[in-house]
Amino acid sequence: MSLKQLTIYIFCIQAYSAKYTPNWKSLDSRPLPPWYDEAKFGIFIHWGVFSVPSFHSEWFWNYWKLQKIPDVVSYMDKNYSPDFTYADFASQFTVEFFNPREWAEILQASGARYVVLTSKHCEGFTNWPSKYSFNWNSNATGPNRDLVGEFSSAIREKTNLKLGLYHCLSEWFNPLYLSDKEANFTTNDFVKFKIMPELYELVSKYKPELLWSDLCEKKGPASYWTSREFLTWLYNESPVKETVVTNDRWCDVCLCKHGGYHTCTDRYNPGTLQKHKWENCMTIDQRSWGYRRNANIEDYLSVHEIITTFASTISCGGNMLMNIGPTKDGIIMPIFEERLRQFGSWLKVNEEAVYGTVPWSHQHDSLTKDIWYTMRKTDNEGTVVYAIVLSWPVQSVLSLFEPLATPVTQVTMLGYQGQFSWIPAEYQGIYIDVPTISWNKLPSRWAWIFKLTFIDN
Amino acid sequence: MSLKQLTIYIFCIQAYSAKYTPNWKSLDSRPLPPWYDEAKFGIFIHWGVFSVPSFHSEWFWNYWKLQKIPDVVSYMDKNYSPDFTYADFASQFTVEFFNPREWAEILQASGARYVVLTSKHCEGFTNWPSKYSFNWNSNATGPNRDLVGEFSSAIREKTNLKLGLYHCLSEWFNPLYLSDKEANFTTNDFVKFKIMPELYELVSKYKPELLWSDLCEKKGPASYWTSREFLTWLYNESPVKETVVTNDRWCDVCLCKHGGYHTCTDRYNPGTLQKHKWENCMTIDQRSWGYRRNANIEDYLSVHEIITTFASTISCGGNMLMNIGPTKDGIIMPIFEERLRQFGSWLKVNEEAVYGTVPWSHQHDSLTKDIWYTMRKTDNEGTVVYAIVLSWPVQSVLSLFEPLATPVTQVTMLGYQGQFSWIPAEYQGIYIDVPTISWNKLPSRWAWIFKLTFIDN
Amino acid sequence: MSLKQLTIYIFCIQAYSAKYTPNWKSLDSRPLPPWYDEAKFGIFIHWGVFSVPSFHSEWFWNYWKLQKIPDVVSYMDKNYSPDFTYADFASQFTVEFFNPREWAEILQASGARYVVLTSKHCEGFTNWPSKYSFNWNSNATGPNRDLVGEFSSAIREKTNLKLGLYHCLSEWFNPLYLSDKEANFTTNDFVKFKIMPELYELVSKYKPELLWSDLCEKKGPASYWTSREFLTWLYNESPVKETVVTNDRWCDVCLCKHGGYHTCTDRYNPGTLQKHKWENCMTIDQRSWGYRRNANIEDYLSVHEIITTFASTISCGGNMLMNIGPTKDGIIMPIFEERLRQFGSWLKVNEEAVYGTVPWSHQHDSLTKDIWYTMRKTDNEGTVVYAIVLSWPVQSVLSLFEPLATPVTQVTMLGYQGQFSWIPAEYQGIYIDVPTISWNKLPSRWAWIFKLTFIDN
Amino acid sequence: MSLKQLTIYIFCIQAYSAKYTPNWKSLDSRPLPPWYDEAKFGIFIHWGVFSVPSFHSEWFWNYWKLQKIPDVVSYMDKNYSPDFTYADFASQFTVEFFNPREWAEILQASGARYVVLTSKHCEGFTNWPSKYSFNWNSNATGPNRDLVGEFSSAIREKTNLKLGLYHCLSEWFNPLYLSDKEANFTTNDFVKFKIMPELYELVSKYKPELLWSDLCEKKGPASYWTSREFLTWLYNESPVKETVVTNDRWCDVCLCKHGGYHTCTDRYNPGTLQKHKWENCMTIDQRSWGYRRNANIEDYLSVHEIITTFASTISCGGNMLMNIGPTKDGIIMPIFEERLRQFGSWLKVNEEAVYGTVPWSHQHDSLTKDIWYTMRKTDNEGTVVYAIVLSWPVQSVLSLFEPLATPVTQVTMLGYQGQFSWIPAEYQGIYIDVPTISWNKLPSRWAWIFKLTFIDN
Repeated sequence: MSLKQLTIYIFCIQAYSAKYTPNWKSLDSRPLPPWYDEAKFGIFIHWGVFSVPSFHSEWFWNYWKLQKIPDVVSYMDKNYSPDFTYADFASQFTVEFFNPREWAEILQASGARYVVLTSKHCEGFTNWPSKYSFNWNSNATGPNRDLVGEFSSAIREKTNLKLGLYHCLSEWFNPLYLSDKEANFTTNDFVKFKIMPELYELVSKYKPELLWSDLCEKKGPASYWTSREFLTWLYNESPVKETVVTNDRWCDVCLCKHGGYHTCTDRYNPGTLQKHKWENCMTIDQRSWGYRRNANIEDYLSVHEIITTFASTISCGGNMLMNIGPTKDGIIMPIFEERLRQFGSWLKVNEEAVYGTVPWSHQHDSLTKDIWYTMRKTDNEGTVVYAIVLSWPVQSVLSLFEPLATPVTQVTMLGYQGQFSWIPAEYQGIYIDVPTISWNKLPSRWAWIFKLTFIDN
Repeated sequence: MSLKQLTIYIFCIQAYSAKYTPNWKSLDSRPLPPWYDEAKFGIFIHWGVFSVPSFHSEWFWNYWKLQKIPDVVSYMDKNYSPDFTYADFASQFTVEFFNPREWAEILQASGARYVVLTSKHCEGFTNWPSKYSFNWNSNATGPNRDLVGEFSSAIREKTNLKLGLYHCLSEWFNPLYLSDKEANFTTNDFVKFKIMPELYELVSKYKPELLWSDLCEKKGPASYWTSREFLTWLYNESPVKETVVTNDRWCDVCLCKHGGYHTCTDRYNPGTLQKHKWENCMTIDQRSWGYRRNANIEDYLSVHEIITTFASTISCGGNMLMNIGPTKDGIIMPIFEERLRQFGSWLKVNEEAVYGTVPWSHQHDSLTKDIWYTMRKTDNEGTVVYAIVLSWPVQSVLSLFEPLATPVTQVTMLGYQGQFSWIPAEYQGIYIDVPTISWNKLPSRWAWIFKLTFIDN
Repeated sequence: MSLKQLTIYIFCIQAYSAKYTPNWKSLDSRPLPPWYDEAKFGIFIHWGVFSVPSFHSEWFWNYWKLQKIPDVVSYMDKNYSPDFTYADFASQFTVEFFNPREWAEILQASGARYVVLTSKHCEGFTNWPSKYSFNWNSNATGPNRDLVGEFSSAIREKTNLKLGLYHCLSEWFNPLYLSDKEANFTTNDFVKFKIMPELYELVSKYKPELLWSDLCEKKGPASYWTSREFLTWLYNESPVKETVVTNDRWCDVCLCKHGGYHTCTDRYNPGTLQKHKWENCMTIDQRSWGYRRNANIEDYLSVHEIITTFASTISCGGNMLMNIGPTKDGIIMPIFEERLRQFGSWLKVNEEAVYGTVPWSHQHDSLTKDIWYTMRKTDNEGTVVYAIVLSWPVQSVLSLFEPLATPVTQVTMLGYQGQFSWIPAEYQGIYIDVPTISWNKLPSRWAWIFKLTFIDN
Repeated sequence: MSLKQLTIYIFCIQAYSAKYTPNWKSLDSRPLPPWYDEAKFGIFIHWGVFSVPSFHSEWFWNYWKLQKIPDVVSYMDKNYSPDFTYADFASQFTVEFFNPREWAEILQASGARYVVLTSKHCEGFTNWPSKYSFNWNSNATGPNRDLVGEFSSAIREKTNLKLGLYHCLSEWFNPLYLSDKEANFTTNDFVKFKIMPELYELVSKYKPELLWSDLCEKKGPASYWTSREFLTWLYNESPVKETVVTNDRWCDVCLCKHGGYHTCTDRYNPGTLQKHKWENCMTIDQRSWGYRRNANIEDYLSVHEIITTFASTISCGGNMLMNIGPTKDGIIMPIFEERLRQFGSWLKVNEEAVYGTVPWSHQHDSLTKDIWYTMRKTDNEGTVVYAIVLSWPVQSVLSLFEPLATPVTQVTMLGYQGQFSWIPAEYQGIYIDVPTISWNKLPSRWAWIFKLTFIDN
């Protein structure tokens, strides 16, 4: 029985027998279903009524009416009649080109192993026909379709990605929420009448393997949100109790502390190994999660930047959840598609160093910069260390300080034929001889992964 | 102390001391606040998202999606894109010309003593910013205004009319309602999470003197709707407990049986004296309560028809609640305004026979048709009987079978100078001599009221 | 051969033989086709893109952008986005309820003998698919229908009304017009490329019996507009050369002077006999020709006011062209329908005194006010004079100063059985004995026409 | 005086003295202003009302209503109401993000030396406030702005690009055009009243250095279009007579024959040297000129494909005019921006081999494929030949068959330090020794240009 098999076995034993109780100690003790750590890479999709203005960000409503950001206020003044309301945008959320099977194909090509779709963002608009969001859902106005349902089916039929659903507990403008908040969360009509019913409905109906909980503002204790009670149900009784993964945004002070894996903050990327499994959720458009019509090319991360983030994330034990924002007509813009396919092509060459690997004892090289490590224990090559090299060695020698090579250590580059000769460094580490390679023989033009077998540390 | 004063006194005594309990026997025992019976005439206003299509009727959504009436389905097919939803209409409910003070002036001119506005019809759209109807209310989409609030203020500032609010318990398409109904009303999430909260909110916020409850379909027992509990609160504790009037549409079998006054069915007009106070709610546009853009002139009742209905209604102890449907831009159409002002001018001449009168022992004349009676006990003229004459006497004699005149009986016509001579009829009743009167001396061209003093029965 | 027959005969002779030349002397010599004078009453219909805002008047565009009337500017500011243009209104001109056969029935019921529809108003939008108004016509945007074509066909199939078409020579915002105007009308691209081609097209295609020419501003000499050349073609060669009637708005100084009948100014009503045939074009909504959504009932003329205007008009030799403004959805509002049917019911009773009559030697009575005369020469009743009495005689005697009765003169009231006795007045005229008539025996409640036969003057 | 100076001198002499006459012989004799040939690369911009549906292509209207392409018809059926017309799209052409100065910066960065904007496409919508397109222009509906004017100013202020304007002579649905066509072009109202006036206006107002004439269908002789007369004016008298460049789409049989440079067909790329200056107009989105919302990343040319097309085009004496389609909101999509900047970065390195070069005696290598040549006569390096190498040599030797080297010939690579050693080939041409170069020392990853000095042929 391999380590991996053992892990799964133990997980299953626990999952079947354990009965969690609604306190953090019990809930936090639940082992994370192993598929998640192995996956490393997921796609985040932000889609909703905010995709109609698609200006500034998915926080458009908040920016317009609460923060009154001048640029947003002025945009509305210039382009809409004075009495236009945010809810009036909904009928323009037309999604006429939404073809979930085409989306599924693109997502698959990106190399992602899971996907997380906003089922409901802070605006409160449910992308499924929720019983608890009368006429403020995608089946009653705008799309006239069950977006979550169509998306889920396509993902399951066409890909092997795990399905995740994002769900926001709070809603900026829901008057029930506002009055609970005003009462300093001593009342909880909003949670009782709205949030919990819809959350049970969502899980029961679409059976997500990942539930990505969010708070639009870090407010409300767990007792208000009844998060512990919900998680107890989720882990003990829900239809996805055995496989579901969740995150840590379950209450005002939960982040980085309770729940499933940690997200801590948006674009969290600590650069050091973390004790608890974590996720770096980040965006290709650096300035927004929802689609922005007026984004420039420089606002989008290049593939090299994406790989850089990815390397540092997985080296430190995190997963990367990379966000795209489809348009109100249901299209994944070519620039997003290009980035996804480019990154997917890189992952295809380098997958051995990614999926199912674990952090090594060292995360990045302390001598040569722009190098991050992952590791895999193998039966036939001993401890294999992968060095993700983000900048091509300027000299013909790649110096790695951390790996302690053994005489049988072999050095190769993923996607490249042949081995590299190496010698031990004087003090510590190894010097790898990197000859000049013609550009058209290189497996990638963005980053290269050197594989070192039988490493001693 | 007059009879009227006594009535008021007794009512007040009861109102202050009584503590009602949530059973029909107790609730039905509450005396109706006297202002209502004295008022006789109110205006009903149907206004909502249905005023946008303003086609067929306020049941547009139901006709389109449930009954699938061909004319309505075909209208949508011809004039809207296939994915257009009912909720998409809301953003076109613009009310740009809505001036509640202008409305108030017209309503006042009609002679009405109360007005009832739809705060929420079967579509579920609240015309006030309800906490329980997130983004499906007039403040969040469409008007961007608190219609109930603006209307209430104007009525109270500019008129002496009592303010009534219509509220529909059921909502055709609310999924919470649908699932309760599917469960045969054994669950009541809809009532608990939606209807009761919003109803308490509505009453507390706008303090209506009349609450016109409705059911879009005669379904759901009182135990489901918690109507008795609500009425107990309304009568015992609400801010309008002393003055509020309500009707009978509180459960599937409540109509014509429980609650305040009886409405029984739409356009209820029994033609005979009723034991219980009742109301004839009817429409000027005979085919719709909501505005219909393609109504023809013949669809509108003439003033003579209105007076005919009014006469038969008040003679039998009813009030008449006459409906108008404003447009989506907030206008009371000239044809409605004309009818209201015409009827108001008639009422002005004849008010003595209307406000504060009571049904007589006989309702209509059994010999001469088109004559209805009202009555008033007076200190100085004895029992006064008013004969509302809808057709001008073809001969020069008006024969009334019912009134038993006394020697001191005098006969006059409201709005006309001088008295009419009369003689007792051979068998019963009196013959009134009606000379030829030049048309320009007649107080009205639609109906005339003869006043008979010191009547013996 | 009766006088009427003779008139027709002479007209035909002239019409067939005459060849008009493009100078006013020749053109003005053309006899007016007799149907027009006999008709007395027509309906004017203003319908176009201005029916979309339907605010203030059909001059909306002008008020908004040229005169910048504050109320109009503020309406746009409050209800539209800042970049909204007038042309953007066109797509909302939907006419979904336009049923020309229903219109025809209403027009027929009004007693009108001709109807004039705006084929193009000052906004330049053609209600027919003109070759010269690419994408600014009812077939290319908005209705997606040939409004003039559908209307013409229905009028001809369902009624015996003559078809008239209104056409505006100038267009406020047409840049071709503006540059000609700037050149002080020394260039005429606008007329050459746009106006004349479309006018020939209009006449050739729809063969109107009446062409109602207009100028939005009284500018441009006849030489600029090439009006004389056009009229020469119209009278000599057009398909309607024999029957077409036209008016006087053909150049800056043409009004009240040249062309067919005179209109002089809007709502022209001189009160004295005119040498030249003229027309009083006026509106039921006193403040606008195009539909106004926010008109109040008091803005609409009452039937009595309409009849008053009509009596003074025809007594002085004019025709009355009464305007209605349909809505952007293609509806003749009930208030208009009511007025039309009311006036039509009055005309039906009194038609003998209207159609085909001629002005009498006196227009109104010089002793008793509110009395206007028409006249008809007959074979069997001699000279018949009709006295249109607008106020019912307060006394029982109707004194008419003007008519010189003969011993055989008989006095009756149209629509009333029996004769009235009369005696000659002391000095001049007659005293008619008017007994008290029961109001339900009167033929009308608005105005009454007394017929006097064998009058001597 | 250099050759270039001489060319300019001769051109100027001719331009000042020549008086062209309206026949092809004379007109075709006009020398092309030299800036055009030197520019090599321009950007084409297709923008108009078709950018609103942005589906299928800028031929949307034609596909929908004339060709009735099922996919387009079905798109309209599914997403619009049945009476929606093409002209109704115009009000949604909002361009709210149109910032011509941002566009100018991107265009400049692409390395283009000229830009051609559609001033009016086959739909007839003018992107400037033309006097001859009342209410069917960008100032009267939709943008409410003078797009051509704003664009021209920005190009001139912010860049050194030459301004070109595309203008389509025919208009699919203009009824004037249709009737001329039906008359087999024996009438020419359309040209006389519409096309010529607007073309004179366009040139006079915006003074384009390039006029890109088009025909939506290859119909109508030059006599119909009065093309020769227009060109005579353009060359002799217009404000741009000295510098304006035009193309060949001036009549049904003009293409590849008359006018200025030849375009022949869309995406014309003959692969052999042409006697007459020509242009390859092509698109980044391979399937459309106008923006297509549902284009996939694979529909867009890669930079390598763009360079391949560019190399073959300029080697054979052509210019490349590469098209982008902005959105209806006025945005150049990131994918377009990326391609433009990528190509611009390549051009920056390689500009020496592009701007101002001329075709060589040979266009592409006959031994090694994917190599195209350009040439430049220099004072200090003799005849310089540039070999554009599209595929990196698989061996370490680059064999060029065509160039006849001299002993002093030096071989370098643009953007790369140092020289390459070479030897004459056995039979003909040279063998260049290409060492392995580290990928990060290569000046490009798409294509490389070898420069050979003192070439003998």
